[in-house]
Amino acid sequence: MNRINPLHEVDTGPAWLEAVCSNLDQFLVDHAACERKASAMAVSMICHYPDREALIGPMSDLAVEEMAHYRDVLRLLRQRGAKLGKDHKDPYVNDLRAAMRRGRDPFFQDQLLVAGLIEARGAERFALLAEALPDADLRRFYGRFATSEARHWQLFLNLADQYFAPQDNAVRLAELSDVEAAIIARQPPRAALH
Amino acid sequence: MNRINPLHEVDTGPAWLEAVCSNLDQFLVDHAACERKASAMAVSMICHYPDREALIGPMSDLAVEEMAHYRDVLRLLRQRGAKLGKDHKDPYVNDLRAAMRRGRDPFFQDQLLVAGLIEARGAERFALLAEALPDADLRRFYGRFATSEARHWQLFLNLADQYFAPQDNAVRLAELSDVEAAIIARQPPRAALH
Repeated sequence: MNRINPLHEVDTGPAWLEAVCSNLDQFLVDHAACERKASAMAVSMICHYPDREALIGPMSDLAVEEMAHYRDVLRLLRQRGAKLGKDHKDPYVNDLRAAMRRGRDPFFQDQLLVAGLIEARGAERFALLAEALPDADLRRFYGRFATSEARHWQLFLNLADQYFAPQDNAVRLAELSDVEAAIIARQPPRAALH
Repeated sequence: MNRINPLHEVDTGPAWLEAVCSNLDQFLVDHAACERKASAMAVSMICHYPDREALIGPMSDLAVEEMAHYRDVLRLLRQRGAKLGKDHKDPYVNDLRAAMRRGRDPFFQDQLLVAGLIEARGAERFALLAEALPDADLRRFYGRFATSEARHWQLFLNLADQYFAPQDNAVRLAELSDVEAAIIARQPPRAALH
């Protein structure tokens, strides 16, 4: 099951880490929203493809796991006395969506590969937080998220290989990974996951 | 925390039980959808009222629990070799929504009370299945759901009492319970939770 990380050579730089550490509560509000959206995405895969049976077990497990993460981040926000606010748009995810092809199969293939890339970026950034945050409890908290997300990107890429030829996935994944890297590179650093 | 069941004297009759038992797979598909919608409803309470802090803990716990139920019902469907299908509309929930008042506070009060009624009806029907289903594993499965839903309707009515005067809630709950009973009475029995 171990696969090569699909992210290209654009690593998250220190400016992002600085933006997060200087406004951790705002980052946590965004992180909670990301977990909620990840759970909703997994559910929507089941609702849109009820006939693609290999998805249903993994996506329903994922929906529960991401919802539990949502609850955990909300709990941490309450412990810190931080306020929830309205959601902000996520230009990273929107720009990735805009790169997805239309048509039943190409769209489905891109959905799985883009989900893999999003989870891989999440894993990279959570691992940075698990090293760099000043508080030991928070470092452990993000260490657990980093481990989960690393499992999730492998899950999506393995699912892609169940539905499409692995060599086709590799070609398309390299293209989408370029797109992802370009989006990350032009993103101004802010206290948000993306 | 023990409260009087808010359902009026309209009990679910034997025709409903017969409809469910004669098409259990179709019922399970609908039940899965109900759990998914219950989880989404809990999340939407947090998103719409991020400043109502007493909601956030219970609603995020509820969102996780209902999502786990969704996964469990999907797992049972797979074990039975049943197919998922597209969702059907839920006229019971739609008719209840139509009875809710507008305006920030009246709408919020009705949301909590109607959620309590929906959970109470779920608890009643799951308890019937926990007695009447022919398969012992399924009886236990529905016994667990009946217990959860009974906890949930109390949760919603207790939340209502945190935000509104209990005597006002009691008056409005009696009105909504009449509406609920009328909807149940006019519903043709079908292999669905409502």
